[in-house]
Amino acid sequence: MNYNFFSPQQICFGWDRFQEVGPLAASLGKRALIIGGSRSLESNGVIEELKRLLLRSNIESEFVRTISNEPEVADVDQTTNLLHHLGAGEGDFLIGIGGGSGIDLAKACAAMITNRESDTVLDYLEGVGKGLKLKQAPLPLLAIPTTAGTGSEATKNAVISSYSPAFKKSLRADEMIPNLVLCDPKLACSVPPEITARTGMDAITQLLESYISCRAQPIPQALCLQGLKLALPALAEAVEDGSSRTARESMAHAALLSGIALANSGLGMAHGVAPALGIHCRISHGLACAVMLPATLKTNLSVRQKEYAEITRFLAPELSLSETEAAQYLIDQIEALNDRINIPRNLSSLGVSQTQIPDLVASSRGNSMSGNPRELSDTELTQILEDLL
Amino acid sequence: MNYNFFSPQQICFGWDRFQEVGPLAASLGKRALIIGGSRSLESNGVIEELKRLLLRSNIESEFVRTISNEPEVADVDQTTNLLHHLGAGEGDFLIGIGGGSGIDLAKACAAMITNRESDTVLDYLEGVGKGLKLKQAPLPLLAIPTTAGTGSEATKNAVISSYSPAFKKSLRADEMIPNLVLCDPKLACSVPPEITARTGMDAITQLLESYISCRAQPIPQALCLQGLKLALPALAEAVEDGSSRTARESMAHAALLSGIALANSGLGMAHGVAPALGIHCRISHGLACAVMLPATLKTNLSVRQKEYAEITRFLAPELSLSETEAAQYLIDQIEALNDRINIPRNLSSLGVSQTQIPDLVASSRGNSMSGNPRELSDTELTQILEDLL
Repeated sequence: MNYNFFSPQQICFGWDRFQEVGPLAASLGKRALIIGGSRSLESNGVIEELKRLLLRSNIESEFVRTISNEPEVADVDQTTNLLHHLGAGEGDFLIGIGGGSGIDLAKACAAMITNRESDTVLDYLEGVGKGLKLKQAPLPLLAIPTTAGTGSEATKNAVISSYSPAFKKSLRADEMIPNLVLCDPKLACSVPPEITARTGMDAITQLLESYISCRAQPIPQALCLQGLKLALPALAEAVEDGSSRTARESMAHAALLSGIALANSGLGMAHGVAPALGIHCRISHGLACAVMLPATLKTNLSVRQKEYAEITRFLAPELSLSETEAAQYLIDQIEALNDRINIPRNLSSLGVSQTQIPDLVASSRGNSMSGNPRELSDTELTQILEDLL
Repeated sequence: MNYNFFSPQQICFGWDRFQEVGPLAASLGKRALIIGGSRSLESNGVIEELKRLLLRSNIESEFVRTISNEPEVADVDQTTNLLHHLGAGEGDFLIGIGGGSGIDLAKACAAMITNRESDTVLDYLEGVGKGLKLKQAPLPLLAIPTTAGTGSEATKNAVISSYSPAFKKSLRADEMIPNLVLCDPKLACSVPPEITARTGMDAITQLLESYISCRAQPIPQALCLQGLKLALPALAEAVEDGSSRTARESMAHAALLSGIALANSGLGMAHGVAPALGIHCRISHGLACAVMLPATLKTNLSVRQKEYAEITRFLAPELSLSETEAAQYLIDQIEALNDRINIPRNLSSLGVSQTQIPDLVASSRGNSMSGNPRELSDTELTQILEDLL
């Protein structure tokens, strides 16, 4: 038993607790620089309310920008420049509000504004660029997730894309974990069913992959069990009835746990292939994870049967199943859930073609794949992807 | 679902990882002020090794003092004065190494050295003194637990005693959670069987009380299940074979989880009565908790049967028990464990007499008791303690 465990030092979770943002944020600084993750946060008045609530606690704020796509190198560099022009520094803090894209952009910019050895984040990304390391602490960051998915509010990395050249890589440092997480499940009520389904499956994939990862750790495993027990029944309900408070609460909590888990334990094949599907086939991250999850579970069954059975026995203690049956039950449950929330079973229905597979295989070899419990050769991964066409 | 969750931002756990203390501590400051929790840490060379390891990372250090008793008001005040004479301030950090007593003293002094509105900690304690609040952040703190018990390395309070007047109260603030926890289970190998038993039962009591607390929360509950699954079989082994690596690892991890849990969820009757037994009858904290735990579980059975059964089903999924049977099974397991590690079944064998019961009842009404799932009148609590004589 040997681990390093990182988590946000403070998490505030609860329905309608967005109202408390002023007093909570006061510990982080005097001026908030806000980065939003969807246009609807502007159109439905959430950003305006955020600024009003901050002002009531004597915190000035500047709305920096909204990002509607998964953040690219240029987004980070341009937004960091915007922050620079706003004089961002001592006494300021960032607020990332939105899904994973908005929070990741805020995390990356909070780090880049204090680390100026290069004027592009490219040079700090894993596996590409110059391999520079963050030397200065990022500006303080408050993360306010509005989708229940990536768990970015609790992780120490920001995922940054590039299409030319094609990559999707992380800016990663222990100090990038948000200082404060304010998770108000009510904010997710306006997320449409399709996005609820995809982001929710991202969280479920993270809970399962970090539980079985070859870097799995005890504290994350404890959190994953609870997250799965809550999320598996709640996701279909959240998709079918977006205003269900219990379903939104369960999903928001499970997504947060999935972030804590993956930040400490790593992931696996589904999250290895998902960035490749994003870059080469423009498939959204959550959808890519969802389609890859059943294949990932089947691929790792031979080395993780015990763990699958542990999960099933925690989820459904009333069932009397052998280890083999209990493990298969978990895979069946995931496939049934995907079907119910209209996740396609194969990649060709998402427009992936045979000719793209070599590129997909080549782009799947990032940090996430290194957590997969079975090491997969290019030949094996090619076969797995071909079988999924 | 509504909670605030605090935890140490970084935990480093592992056998022999004490060797890494230098590089880890370097993030906290330039000079370490060390407070130790037992004479044996000096006599067996641990303090000397600590200073040597720090120096290798260019961290100066001063050994401030050892405390062998549970810290009293005068201990905190005197030690804060010692720190003051050492010029403690910017760039310095504290190391608390030892059991709960040493770490609590370090936590209290880290706060008192930066909060000087009164020259005695008394004025900052809950429910006694002037009710002053901490306004300044404490000095950074590295906690190195050497017993698997209180979980003080992960909590936001320090328990401070006084015998005249008689009280045992907490200095508590969110900012008092140690910045960094270095937990090396090997350090516990020299703890004798009796102390291993008592401190271990403190951890187990914390895991159970915070799971059933009326302020119970989801993340702590997930951690409690794992902590109990590891600790219940490991404690007898750690008592009987102090050098067992797996037993010491399980207990150290479970104690850490118990600290995270209680810091967020509160406790119950056993921890309500334990300080009273400490103050009026000079019974050590762990022993008091151990003796009180079976009675606490029985007292709360009527309102927490479902939770006891959940725990049993997680601990022993192979048993097919009704909810009633599963709940009783948990109580039986705790009683059997107490018997096996030589914890007495009653208070009279610890020297408690009938005449002390009114004082014990009066002194049991602290923060811990407020977490107990059933509210207990003085008459009920008197009856419970009389039945335990």
